[in-house]
Amino acid sequence: MKYAFFLIQTEDRKGLLATISDFFYTRGFNILRCQQYTDLHENKYYMRVKLDLTDLTVTRAQLEKNFSDLAEELNLKWSIQYSDQVPRMAIMVSKTSHCLYDLLVHHQENDLFCEIPLIISNHPDLEHVADKFKIPYYCCPLKKGEKTQQELEVRDLLKKNHIDLIVLARYMQILSNDFIENFEGGIINIHHAFLPAFKGGSPYKQAWEHGVKMIGATAHYATCDLDEGPIIEQDVERITHELVPDDLKRIGKDIERRVLTRAVKAHLDNRLIVSGRRSIVFPN
Amino acid sequence: MKYAFFLIQTEDRKGLLATISDFFYTRGFNILRCQQYTDLHENKYYMRVKLDLTDLTVTRAQLEKNFSDLAEELNLKWSIQYSDQVPRMAIMVSKTSHCLYDLLVHHQENDLFCEIPLIISNHPDLEHVADKFKIPYYCCPLKKGEKTQQELEVRDLLKKNHIDLIVLARYMQILSNDFIENFEGGIINIHHAFLPAFKGGSPYKQAWEHGVKMIGATAHYATCDLDEGPIIEQDVERITHELVPDDLKRIGKDIERRVLTRAVKAHLDNRLIVSGRRSIVFPN
Amino acid sequence: MKYAFFLIQTEDRKGLLATISDFFYTRGFNILRCQQYTDLHENKYYMRVKLDLTDLTVTRAQLEKNFSDLAEELNLKWSIQYSDQVPRMAIMVSKTSHCLYDLLVHHQENDLFCEIPLIISNHPDLEHVADKFKIPYYCCPLKKGEKTQQELEVRDLLKKNHIDLIVLARYMQILSNDFIENFEGGIINIHHAFLPAFKGGSPYKQAWEHGVKMIGATAHYATCDLDEGPIIEQDVERITHELVPDDLKRIGKDIERRVLTRAVKAHLDNRLIVSGRRSIVFPN
Amino acid sequence: MKYAFFLIQTEDRKGLLATISDFFYTRGFNILRCQQYTDLHENKYYMRVKLDLTDLTVTRAQLEKNFSDLAEELNLKWSIQYSDQVPRMAIMVSKTSHCLYDLLVHHQENDLFCEIPLIISNHPDLEHVADKFKIPYYCCPLKKGEKTQQELEVRDLLKKNHIDLIVLARYMQILSNDFIENFEGGIINIHHAFLPAFKGGSPYKQAWEHGVKMIGATAHYATCDLDEGPIIEQDVERITHELVPDDLKRIGKDIERRVLTRAVKAHLDNRLIVSGRRSIVFPN
Repeated sequence: MKYAFFLIQTEDRKGLLATISDFFYTRGFNILRCQQYTDLHENKYYMRVKLDLTDLTVTRAQLEKNFSDLAEELNLKWSIQYSDQVPRMAIMVSKTSHCLYDLLVHHQENDLFCEIPLIISNHPDLEHVADKFKIPYYCCPLKKGEKTQQELEVRDLLKKNHIDLIVLARYMQILSNDFIENFEGGIINIHHAFLPAFKGGSPYKQAWEHGVKMIGATAHYATCDLDEGPIIEQDVERITHELVPDDLKRIGKDIERRVLTRAVKAHLDNRLIVSGRRSIVFPN
Repeated sequence: MKYAFFLIQTEDRKGLLATISDFFYTRGFNILRCQQYTDLHENKYYMRVKLDLTDLTVTRAQLEKNFSDLAEELNLKWSIQYSDQVPRMAIMVSKTSHCLYDLLVHHQENDLFCEIPLIISNHPDLEHVADKFKIPYYCCPLKKGEKTQQELEVRDLLKKNHIDLIVLARYMQILSNDFIENFEGGIINIHHAFLPAFKGGSPYKQAWEHGVKMIGATAHYATCDLDEGPIIEQDVERITHELVPDDLKRIGKDIERRVLTRAVKAHLDNRLIVSGRRSIVFPN
Repeated sequence: MKYAFFLIQTEDRKGLLATISDFFYTRGFNILRCQQYTDLHENKYYMRVKLDLTDLTVTRAQLEKNFSDLAEELNLKWSIQYSDQVPRMAIMVSKTSHCLYDLLVHHQENDLFCEIPLIISNHPDLEHVADKFKIPYYCCPLKKGEKTQQELEVRDLLKKNHIDLIVLARYMQILSNDFIENFEGGIINIHHAFLPAFKGGSPYKQAWEHGVKMIGATAHYATCDLDEGPIIEQDVERITHELVPDDLKRIGKDIERRVLTRAVKAHLDNRLIVSGRRSIVFPN
Repeated sequence: MKYAFFLIQTEDRKGLLATISDFFYTRGFNILRCQQYTDLHENKYYMRVKLDLTDLTVTRAQLEKNFSDLAEELNLKWSIQYSDQVPRMAIMVSKTSHCLYDLLVHHQENDLFCEIPLIISNHPDLEHVADKFKIPYYCCPLKKGEKTQQELEVRDLLKKNHIDLIVLARYMQILSNDFIENFEGGIINIHHAFLPAFKGGSPYKQAWEHGVKMIGATAHYATCDLDEGPIIEQDVERITHELVPDDLKRIGKDIERRVLTRAVKAHLDNRLIVSGRRSIVFPN
């Protein structure tokens, strides 16, 4: 079966649901799933529609044109994805492999709907992981004072590979605003703490010193405000006083990998709409 | 503001969403929230609609008549609740007070939308709890061989008090099929184990002997099959080998209270549809 | 049965366990439980010993004297509690009742080992809760510019009632350093956020605006650094984008109550040792 | 640094801690960690001692002989492991790779202290996974009526490779009693349900039909009673009515992998003592 996913946001008002569902009904579509959320706080309306394309009697271009007319009329912000257009995801890493492994294993087991044409790193260390899964590994080292140059190199690789989504799987470098703006909404990062606690470096050491009783991890879209982009997923684990910072790091690795993989999956499943600082994550 | 809640279930087919939402739209209603779920496994469609009644220009009877016509046409099973009709809830207990307290405290703090006209017990022990919250307490003791008589007494009390929902807050008696059938879908029970594990008596002792690493509790609708009714809510807590059965009991009390209160809240919020053994719990 | 609880901390070195356990063994004591923790990071040793007093053949004063000699020799910091000396706990509240209720209900059900001779508030609102449980309620209103005076009044009440532990169960006032230093290590506070995230006011609103996917609560000893005292217990709940700040507040109430009650229980069970910013919480 | 781990169990009585710790103290050992647990319910005493071997002035054989004498005197059941004797672990699989991957990745990242000399399967499917990590893969297919023969083949491989621990990472065959008894206490299995609920086959389908609100997984030592061996670790995830059995299977995979890996880690860290149906898992 083939599907289309519509993601829609607009000002809330009467009749949106009736009008939009009528659009699909009168065209003979079967709505397999319709998820909505009305933010009464900010008077906004969000909608995700999963459409069965079996009965599509017009071209996709025509469908999009027709919906585009409706969207203009209703002032909808929208996007569409098709289940037979496989997104292309790049993974960026530095030296730690746990998040990279988790993405590759889930991909291998068909739990992540995407292609992974390349892995990019500022270090050569993880080439062996890429090799295991037969994915090209590009090492773009960061020499002092040559960050702009290195980022251009990376952007060139991303462009040549037609990348739709960049996942920072413990890429320990701060990307320039220029880089981020160029891929806005298309970069997912994992931060190894329960944001907004413990921003910045060495969060597990910070956590230990604070004597917190749980540690966590946060996956979020990267924006120009470091560690402040829309949060996609978080999780925590209970810890005890007996654990030293190295234990926290080890336990944290398991939290990070599952948080990042879940966030990437939500993005690839077209279940995510961003609105300001907040992200709407429709349940699976 | 006044609301109406529609709970709907039917066979899934094309156009349901469009037709039903159109029904409300053409009558000028504002749909505040529309939650749906299509069970592709069993081809069933479930829907919860929260309606703003501010713009109601016809009588409620008329609205119900009109929707009833649509329901007949589409073969919908449905119910309606109004936010100004406060459900009346009876609590049945035996000797342990923790679930009773939790319901009464949450009610006191306006977290449960209902009236509690009475508490019924087969023991006199918890009258002091009822007294604290100024709720009439009826003791209907169970003498050997007089269960039928006692249940008639209880049913009489429930009827006189126009009870909509019965909560078994650790009522340690098995109700007769006759009693249950008479209130089908209107009795919520708490079982002190993670069903279907540890059915029947002394579940914490069973759990200890099995050496499980988590214990739980389950709230479900009571049916004639003991501990087999549709599950509404479950939760667990991690335990260690260091805890003796009495510790499990104490920890279990806290799980039981929150599981039961959440289940009762979901019912009172009109977020629950039962379908066979399964319950659809729309999120808050 | 009667018990004594020793809580011990010192620099770690060889033979501590052997020497201390030998002290009890040679005196014929039965060690019911011995919990230790060696902080290799900071080279510190922590110990909790639960002693069966049945075989006590000397006076308690003599036992303490003897242990005191050992402690001096080994440079131990220590305290002792007896199971027949019931701690006296004061609860301080403002206007919200959920934490207060939870403490009183758990106390009523014998889950908290203490007496509660009084409840103190800066508002009259919760007298009805105190009345339900027949506990004296003192209202010490805070008039502008008279904080010092009010605190003296409160301290007078605490002193007259021989209070060992003060629980701030959503007491919405900042206590003066003078007040805190006077009861150092004897004040437990609940903060309605997952510290160190969202310090200060309106944490649920902050959490909503940040779009976090989990909210939490933190119980900690009050120190002169606001919301920075040693953390005793934390917990979280998963939330979704659908919840408005008022929902977070309601869900948060349930987290707060269980976190505070667990922290108070750990203190009353003599399972807590504070060391700098960190607290050692021995498991139950 | 080199360590030794003692795991001890015996009847509880006075002076055990003093006597045993004295044994090490008088021999000049530094006890890095001493964990105990007294099961007052069944009057049993469990102990784990982590010893610094730096100051070992006698041979290991001598140390063991000396402790053996003490053990005989005190009637201790005990074992010793050394940190420089790396356990050898075999993984047995069928066709699903998620648990296998998780073990191999954690091993690769030095989170599991063992060698993995071989992977055994009754199917050829997962050879590519073994290849990635350069571990020999043996396919021992199970032809009808030749189970005894196949098990002998497997046992031969295990023996030749000096295997200390067998991990059944979704090996979908029931091992014979003979096989199990031969490795008693040395086989860890993952069951894809929250035992004792949903024993046997298709647990996710069973869970869906029961409409449970959480699903789980259980790692346990294999015994001759199928799915009844001592539980080592369990975990759960909350689910909703929206998920179909295939979703439960996918979510379950993530629970299974982390539960199995944690259980294996506890075993390899020498933190596990089995007593009847129950397992004592000392915290990390």
